[in-house]
Amino acid sequence: MTQECIFCKIINGEIPAKKIFENDKVLAFLDIFPMSQGHTVIIPKKHFNHFENVDSSTIAEVFNTIQYLGRFYLKIPSIEGFNVLVNNYSAAGQVIEHFHVHLIPRKTNDGIISHKIPKEQASEEELNEFLEIFSKIKN
Amino acid sequence: MTQECIFCKIINGEIPAKKIFENDKVLAFLDIFPMSQGHTVIIPKKHFNHFENVDSSTIAEVFNTIQYLGRFYLKIPSIEGFNVLVNNYSAAGQVIEHFHVHLIPRKTNDGIISHKIPKEQASEEELNEFLEIFSKIKN
Repeated sequence: MTQECIFCKIINGEIPAKKIFENDKVLAFLDIFPMSQGHTVIIPKKHFNHFENVDSSTIAEVFNTIQYLGRFYLKIPSIEGFNVLVNNYSAAGQVIEHFHVHLIPRKTNDGIISHKIPKEQASEEELNEFLEIFSKIKN
Repeated sequence: MTQECIFCKIINGEIPAKKIFENDKVLAFLDIFPMSQGHTVIIPKKHFNHFENVDSSTIAEVFNTIQYLGRFYLKIPSIEGFNVLVNNYSAAGQVIEHFHVHLIPRKTNDGIISHKIPKEQASEEELNEFLEIFSKIKN
């Protein structure tokens, strides 16, 4: 728990939230700026700022909770699919520095999330360039 | 393994891929239509069509692998953050029906992923409406 963290305050009950699931390790609640109806935020109760710092059993618990909720959400007639999204660091859209995962219900052509997808396939050279960078960092 | 699945063919070695990590349960390789340099796809070796059908130990393995890779990617100077993204069902952007997760390296203002985020907070009524729908489906 960090004193200034909004999500820690939700866990503590200092800030209200529409909780959808809770156990001793994780909490799921509705996003108050929803991209779609049912947009849910899933957080570990322990404070971790970034994805790479979360311990592996908590990672498992968080994503298994998302699966548990997703199974129910898919039974709701207006929901045709969902995205599971982590924004790690501000460059990737992370606003609150308490690791969290978005579960975003989707409908066909709702236009909620758009990606810049290249029209052309990456060249062999481009892919190899990253493999080399990765291999240097790793070893 | 299903005969027509592109990802199963990559696992089998029938289709080449730039592999970045592999163990007995999961495979990670570079997306050939990368949204950014290092865009990686992580898949379980067993064929599951959708997220909700993946067994819980495989969920854990997949997301722990993403964390393992993400820790290295963050050491690459040009990478400032990353998204972890699951598109589950075509309404959510799933193209290949073999469960997979995208690991997308990001830089500030790269404009790769954009979301439709509402300007106004959801009302109490809007949030409660979903809580009621969920509670009916669940019970």
